[in-house]
Amino acid sequence: MRAVVFLLSASLLTLASLSPSAQSGDVRAAIEAANRKFEGAWNSKNAAAAVALYTANATVLPPNGPSATGSQALLEFWKAGLAGAPGPVTLTTTEVEAHGDTAHEVGAYVISTADGKVADKGKYIVIWKRDGGQWKLHRDMWSSDLPAAGM
Amino acid sequence: MRAVVFLLSASLLTLASLSPSAQSGDVRAAIEAANRKFEGAWNSKNAAAAVALYTANATVLPPNGPSATGSQALLEFWKAGLAGAPGPVTLTTTEVEAHGDTAHEVGAYVISTADGKVADKGKYIVIWKRDGGQWKLHRDMWSSDLPAAGM
Repeated sequence: MRAVVFLLSASLLTLASLSPSAQSGDVRAAIEAANRKFEGAWNSKNAAAAVALYTANATVLPPNGPSATGSQALLEFWKAGLAGAPGPVTLTTTEVEAHGDTAHEVGAYVISTADGKVADKGKYIVIWKRDGGQWKLHRDMWSSDLPAAGM
Repeated sequence: MRAVVFLLSASLLTLASLSPSAQSGDVRAAIEAANRKFEGAWNSKNAAAAVALYTANATVLPPNGPSATGSQALLEFWKAGLAGAPGPVTLTTTEVEAHGDTAHEVGAYVISTADGKVADKGKYIVIWKRDGGQWKLHRDMWSSDLPAAGM
């Protein structure tokens, strides 16, 4: 009986530790650390380093272009994207909610020109997956806050 | 003792029924039903009916414009958006993952002209929340697959 009560208590403790509010803080820190790595990959125009931050079957859903899925497609996407980037990117997390091995993040980005002006700014939603103990981008979507050219 | 074992078994059954794979099918059906209502609201240019499908503190993250949060801001956003819509929208769900009262959906949209041509097509990510027993849009982001005007 004592063993059963202990098991039950242990189960409830485990459940408590898995509640979204309890775990989201730690996950947010891990996601923000991964975002610092993404900024580093972007700023050094290192597409392979960026792709290493995604799951193997990740999808990018870029504005004004089709989605791309999988490491090879992402490598081509980021090679082209980073080659054309005018300057560094800054990512600012505004919301993280974690549920087990899945989390979603809402945030804002700013892309600067080489001389520090704002080239583009916007927002993003990323679905993250804990993959081999590491939080990786799994679905990555963003769009500009600025009017489209010609509008 | 029998009561404790029963309670423990009931807890484990509850846990099993809450696993992502077990619950995502039902949630997907509920989300697809809500999407049919969204299409109906869009097609009748009924902004209030569209906003009723969102949580009270929902955010839309539209392309080429700032995000908007809360029922009043969403009502203004959809009044303007639906007034300018060229024709009906079709939403096609490609992925739903549910974790408790939160789910994310990835899908594709097509906006047609009144005479049935494709005016725009793209993709979306929605974070859904179960709110008073009903699945509602909580974070709603989309972007076109088509090149931006002037690009």
